[in-house]
Amino acid sequence: MKFTNSSHVIIFGGGLVGTLLGLYLARKGCKVDIYERRADMRKVQRFDGRSINLALSDRGWRALQSIGIGDEIKEISIPMYGRSIHNVDGTVSFLPYSKDGLCIYSVSRGTLNAKLLELLENEPNVAFHFEQKCVKVDFATTTATIQHMPTGEQFAVKADAIFGADGAFSAVRASMQKTDRFEYQQHYIDHAYKELNIEALPDGGFALDKNALHIWPRGHYMMIALPNIDSTFTCTLFFPYEGDPSFATLTTPEKVDDFFSKTFPDARPLMHHLEEDFFANPTASLPTIKCYPWTRNATSLIGDAAHGITPFFGQGMNAGFEDCTVLSEAIDNSESWQEALEVYQRSRKPNTDAIAELALQNFIEMRDLVSSPAFILRKKIEMRLQTLFPEKWIPLYSQVTFSKEPYSKALASGQEQDRIMQIVMAEEDIENQWQNDEYLIKIAQKVGII
Amino acid sequence: MKFTNSSHVIIFGGGLVGTLLGLYLARKGCKVDIYERRADMRKVQRFDGRSINLALSDRGWRALQSIGIGDEIKEISIPMYGRSIHNVDGTVSFLPYSKDGLCIYSVSRGTLNAKLLELLENEPNVAFHFEQKCVKVDFATTTATIQHMPTGEQFAVKADAIFGADGAFSAVRASMQKTDRFEYQQHYIDHAYKELNIEALPDGGFALDKNALHIWPRGHYMMIALPNIDSTFTCTLFFPYEGDPSFATLTTPEKVDDFFSKTFPDARPLMHHLEEDFFANPTASLPTIKCYPWTRNATSLIGDAAHGITPFFGQGMNAGFEDCTVLSEAIDNSESWQEALEVYQRSRKPNTDAIAELALQNFIEMRDLVSSPAFILRKKIEMRLQTLFPEKWIPLYSQVTFSKEPYSKALASGQEQDRIMQIVMAEEDIENQWQNDEYLIKIAQKVGII
Repeated sequence: MKFTNSSHVIIFGGGLVGTLLGLYLARKGCKVDIYERRADMRKVQRFDGRSINLALSDRGWRALQSIGIGDEIKEISIPMYGRSIHNVDGTVSFLPYSKDGLCIYSVSRGTLNAKLLELLENEPNVAFHFEQKCVKVDFATTTATIQHMPTGEQFAVKADAIFGADGAFSAVRASMQKTDRFEYQQHYIDHAYKELNIEALPDGGFALDKNALHIWPRGHYMMIALPNIDSTFTCTLFFPYEGDPSFATLTTPEKVDDFFSKTFPDARPLMHHLEEDFFANPTASLPTIKCYPWTRNATSLIGDAAHGITPFFGQGMNAGFEDCTVLSEAIDNSESWQEALEVYQRSRKPNTDAIAELALQNFIEMRDLVSSPAFILRKKIEMRLQTLFPEKWIPLYSQVTFSKEPYSKALASGQEQDRIMQIVMAEEDIENQWQNDEYLIKIAQKVGII
Repeated sequence: MKFTNSSHVIIFGGGLVGTLLGLYLARKGCKVDIYERRADMRKVQRFDGRSINLALSDRGWRALQSIGIGDEIKEISIPMYGRSIHNVDGTVSFLPYSKDGLCIYSVSRGTLNAKLLELLENEPNVAFHFEQKCVKVDFATTTATIQHMPTGEQFAVKADAIFGADGAFSAVRASMQKTDRFEYQQHYIDHAYKELNIEALPDGGFALDKNALHIWPRGHYMMIALPNIDSTFTCTLFFPYEGDPSFATLTTPEKVDDFFSKTFPDARPLMHHLEEDFFANPTASLPTIKCYPWTRNATSLIGDAAHGITPFFGQGMNAGFEDCTVLSEAIDNSESWQEALEVYQRSRKPNTDAIAELALQNFIEMRDLVSSPAFILRKKIEMRLQTLFPEKWIPLYSQVTFSKEPYSKALASGQEQDRIMQIVMAEEDIENQWQNDEYLIKIAQKVGII
């Protein structure tokens, strides 16, 4: 009999990754207890300043489809086929994500989480415990001390395996940090983010192209907007804490209005409650968290608890869901929790390090390069190279977003492509000749693509 | 009136840095409460696996002299004038630390700590609280929650300033880690250390030269020995956790004996309880800890709590003591705790980052390079350069150990010296000609030393 059968598993965190993991494990025969610090999100209204929409891409879809809710979620999500780039002069240009019409999907975190909770409630072996948090874990005995938050009462529960799916500020990881030789780092970039809104038109329509991810790249900072099914857009301003301009300088409604009018002239008129939102919504920090090992005996970290990353590649949730896929395969090929967790962490760690790096790189690309003519030309040439040599040239964005190749392979391949494209872009007359296939094939031969 | 006068200050940690800081602050008119997790070390025997002797050098002496206990400590310490290098063939060579007979001092951690405690007890404004630990700190109100460990009872104390001098695994820092935008990393090298002993001779004498720091460099690992006033030596083996040889392979008394006999042939016969010590003493890890900020409002970290470093430059305690010197000057030139702590952390952080880096570099030098003829030649040439151009050439070791120059300046200057010495060592016939001053002066001109 498989070791998972009748195993008792504790999962801390009832967010996206904790619930998906619960489903996977319940269907492998485990008895699952999920402990969530907060109240049931379906019963209480909350907005804690975390991004309320997400971009689902291939890695996320694979995980959702494997548990049979892909179609259901697709119905409540909005496809985005490319980046819509808003220049400071008001002009807009569109850069498709792929030559084949591939897309990513804007979906509400709340709706997705609620769906996963619903599914879990239909599983006979899963119990949900809200407003209960991890105090500490004794790794040697796989025993968690849990606190019932409304009463403060604490109790201990022993399990066959424990998972920390409790996010970037994981309590399970805090316990692990006290064990010897635990590698750990938390780093914050110099930018914060703030969520703002673009309202629906009076007729109920979308104020911008609904099938694009909108970007207002402005060098050292940027704003983005993703569509919601109620015809609004959620905007996120990624902006420095200090300097000029920065969150430190936008101190009054007048300054905010003035700054947005000048900097985001086409968006400003669509943001009817800008000043109110700006001062009501939190200015939230952007940590990157790395640690190792993820596993101590039969306790392991998963999702943001193991690898908190910045949101700039849209891969935070997708990476967490892929953790579940990788763990599930490791379990299927192992004889014990310890073996499965060891296989999982070893195979997964280099890839989550890679996506952390790629996410930081993509911030530079999005806020800075995306508005330069040379960058836009490079993207077009890359897409043409992909058309000509579909086996030889897969753009980095596609490798991350539209494939299941390991992130570490995408990172390495992206570095190689960078090297090659620097040579290509230095070719004489490239800006006028690139649409001439004969010319481009000659260059591809020269730089070793074919 | 100076803000420190009648300020109430809490210090967590009654180790070397906590007690020294307590003395500094008491003498500035503060009312000081020191809370120490452990029992009074003077009343209980303990050995917790931490190094029981230390190398005091200039930065440490300056701090001790400024509070008037320099001479007293010097009496119970042993000067070491250089490195005594023990080769695997049993030969020994001596490398002086400086051309002028400067030395570092081997001193017992316990004795030094007890002396500092005694001094503190003579201060009317200082109270000591043993077996009481920091649970958490509320930085906004400068209020600490403290637990009396024998009873488990918790209570809160508000202060004008709070210091975390509670070591590499600081509880004050753990509280700080939960605040937003706290940069933090802990990293462990692949080596552990284990303390061993060389006994005194039957006649009560030292079994090795008492005025040297002994090193058995063996490439990927090493053993060192420092003299104690009872004519013993404390040996420390720095050795990999994994691989062959490593702590993982030395699993039986026979294997330990065999390994030491072959690897440290001159030391082995002097270690009468080797096998017993080897399995009784802990295998201890070697963390490097970096964080920033050190200060939240009127709470600050100091010593290992702010910057845990590896012991390879003998600067852990010296750096912690220098923190006190820098903080003391910052207080004298400021109008409030907040201002003083801000000045202190800003000026100190680049220097503790530098000594962390220098310590890791020195591990490579000690275990690996110190036994190569080219390295020994280089040291000799550097000393000759210093004699010829005392203003222009101060070896890195001297800048760190025998000066009060900022560590960051020493690090930068060491990198420049590395670059220059690579050129010098590549000169034709350097190994035969370096004692010819005319030749050496010509080279010094060529590489820009003069």
